[in-house]
Amino acid sequence: MAKTTLAPTTLAPGARIGIVGGGQLGRMLALAAARLGMSCHIYTDRKDDPAIEIAAAATIAPYDNEMALAGFAADVDVITYEFENIPAWSAEFLAAIKPVRPSPAVLALTQDRLVEKNFIASLGIEVAPFAQVDDAGALARAIAQIGRPSILKTRRFGYDGKGQTLVREGSDLAVAFRSLGGQPSILEGFVPFVCEVSVVAARGLDGDFVAWDVGLNTHEHHILATTEVPASIDPDLRVRARDKAMRIAEALDYVGVLAVEMFVVSTPEGKRLLVNEIAPRVHNSGHWTLDGAATSQFEQHIRAICGFPLGLARAHGPVEMINLIGDDIFRWRDFLDVPGACLHVYGKADARPGRKMGHVTILKSAERDDDDSTR
Amino acid sequence: MAKTTLAPTTLAPGARIGIVGGGQLGRMLALAAARLGMSCHIYTDRKDDPAIEIAAAATIAPYDNEMALAGFAADVDVITYEFENIPAWSAEFLAAIKPVRPSPAVLALTQDRLVEKNFIASLGIEVAPFAQVDDAGALARAIAQIGRPSILKTRRFGYDGKGQTLVREGSDLAVAFRSLGGQPSILEGFVPFVCEVSVVAARGLDGDFVAWDVGLNTHEHHILATTEVPASIDPDLRVRARDKAMRIAEALDYVGVLAVEMFVVSTPEGKRLLVNEIAPRVHNSGHWTLDGAATSQFEQHIRAICGFPLGLARAHGPVEMINLIGDDIFRWRDFLDVPGACLHVYGKADARPGRKMGHVTILKSAERDDDDSTR
Repeated sequence: MAKTTLAPTTLAPGARIGIVGGGQLGRMLALAAARLGMSCHIYTDRKDDPAIEIAAAATIAPYDNEMALAGFAADVDVITYEFENIPAWSAEFLAAIKPVRPSPAVLALTQDRLVEKNFIASLGIEVAPFAQVDDAGALARAIAQIGRPSILKTRRFGYDGKGQTLVREGSDLAVAFRSLGGQPSILEGFVPFVCEVSVVAARGLDGDFVAWDVGLNTHEHHILATTEVPASIDPDLRVRARDKAMRIAEALDYVGVLAVEMFVVSTPEGKRLLVNEIAPRVHNSGHWTLDGAATSQFEQHIRAICGFPLGLARAHGPVEMINLIGDDIFRWRDFLDVPGACLHVYGKADARPGRKMGHVTILKSAERDDDDSTR
Repeated sequence: MAKTTLAPTTLAPGARIGIVGGGQLGRMLALAAARLGMSCHIYTDRKDDPAIEIAAAATIAPYDNEMALAGFAADVDVITYEFENIPAWSAEFLAAIKPVRPSPAVLALTQDRLVEKNFIASLGIEVAPFAQVDDAGALARAIAQIGRPSILKTRRFGYDGKGQTLVREGSDLAVAFRSLGGQPSILEGFVPFVCEVSVVAARGLDGDFVAWDVGLNTHEHHILATTEVPASIDPDLRVRARDKAMRIAEALDYVGVLAVEMFVVSTPEGKRLLVNEIAPRVHNSGHWTLDGAATSQFEQHIRAICGFPLGLARAHGPVEMINLIGDDIFRWRDFLDVPGACLHVYGKADARPGRKMGHVTILKSAERDDDDSTR
């Protein structure tokens, strides 16, 4: 991928960071920026977004409003984003005014599952079998090639299980294709994986690459439920997982934090890793770093996009991160009573089902009694 | 000290915390509150204070403005303060409307060095010899009793070496007394201490007491320069130091984080601890907890004043905190390059001499190489 045409910009404390998106990731990015003496300007189309209240400035406008985007870009020194479903056009528009990190090209690539899979495969990194599906006929041909069960996914705008459907034995293909709105899609072979892991890592403006310990993820209803660090998989697999993430970050000339989700599959020749997805941003499976590592993913992302050296990713010890989804948040007080549990509440008013409301990091070495504090 | 007359109030995420004072302590309290899903309202008399920009609301008004205080109190669920030189009257006024934690009585006690010393001594806790000095004649009598060198300090509104003067052999007593503006003062014996330590600790609304590891402090020009944790003193002294802090907190029916500064003195019978000062708030010598402990002093204070259970104070390992005073802040980039250094910049525009601009926490176990991250 071509280098960005804008000259590298290194900022200093006091600079202003523009964040596109105002959810919990934007909120935690803004909190990390504040530690370093940076102020933040949030751009979002939702006036109740939780990042707004702790940011120095906010623009509430549609993501394709040229006037609003121009005013936002003029007010900040560097721009990043906390979710990848903003229009690629908007990112290009912003990048003509101020540096956008990670680059709009990275954003465009990760917005399209087909382009993303082709890119990963082009690096010689294994992915699940996949085929392009533009119509019901193409779906039949893809099924003939990949088999069942398999998963039909829209190429764009899917997350947390949205925009996908399982194609079983006997599933009606026309119905399956129509259920996703007849959009350009891809069919992916269903991978009987042992577990899912993710590598959260950062690449600096100078090309430095730093990865945290690999996390083992569990999901419920297609939403991340827990991350366990370090992942209880072979050390050799952990090394290979980080190596894949590094090759992806370098091929993208990436700047910032990224997450690479992978499946661990068992084969007669041993365990293999298939890359499932790249998230061009801080990631839920890296939330544990706020409490459990020398540098959090949020501070690391701010360091990277500001052109600062990357911080130490070392973990303080083993941790488990538990997402608080929907009603789970009403259990907040229970977690405050657990020794070594660090509670995070995102400040969202309405605990709708499936909504990420907070998370808890359990520092598992909390039982240890080798220090000097009274508790 | 009598229990507060207001019924204990336990809050929940979404509640609003009022913070009197808008400096770096207020800023770091507000950042900690945000993690727990709380919003903050800052009350300050300075419009450029660094806590304002990351708080949901701010009142800029003199600390004795009744209308402004009433509006502030009406908007929040609980009130705390980040510095102790606000008028005790204002704290009493606020406490008639909303819970103020720590209590106005604690504030009043710690605002007067004479009252504070008498209180500490009344607990059977040793302090440096001291005497009340209301005029130059009383100073002569106090010198006769305590000897020279000794330190004359105003009873009220001193900090970072302000409002004090050393009385040496040959010092003119009338000049010394006038140099502090002729205010009610106390004379303290000069203690030839081995080192200064501080205990930062918290007491919950339920009376639970939790202390972090004792810190060893060094000063330059009367301003805290570094804190080393754990303090390199006898384990037995560390236990005794925390015990004194606990007795003080209990006698004050304290709610929140407090710091107790102590001198370690050498006597023929062994090392002794003299309590120097109580700070009824989060404290510079506890800043290391942001990066180096399971729960930071800022989150702990928020937990305490909200009536939540206190968190684990365990340190992740040995640390050193280095204050960035005045021009020191221009070295920010050097620290970003140090493995295990966590930089904090307070977002103050003007790096005046003696002004606290930021701090760095060095995680000393960073050399250790027993984890799995790539760096």
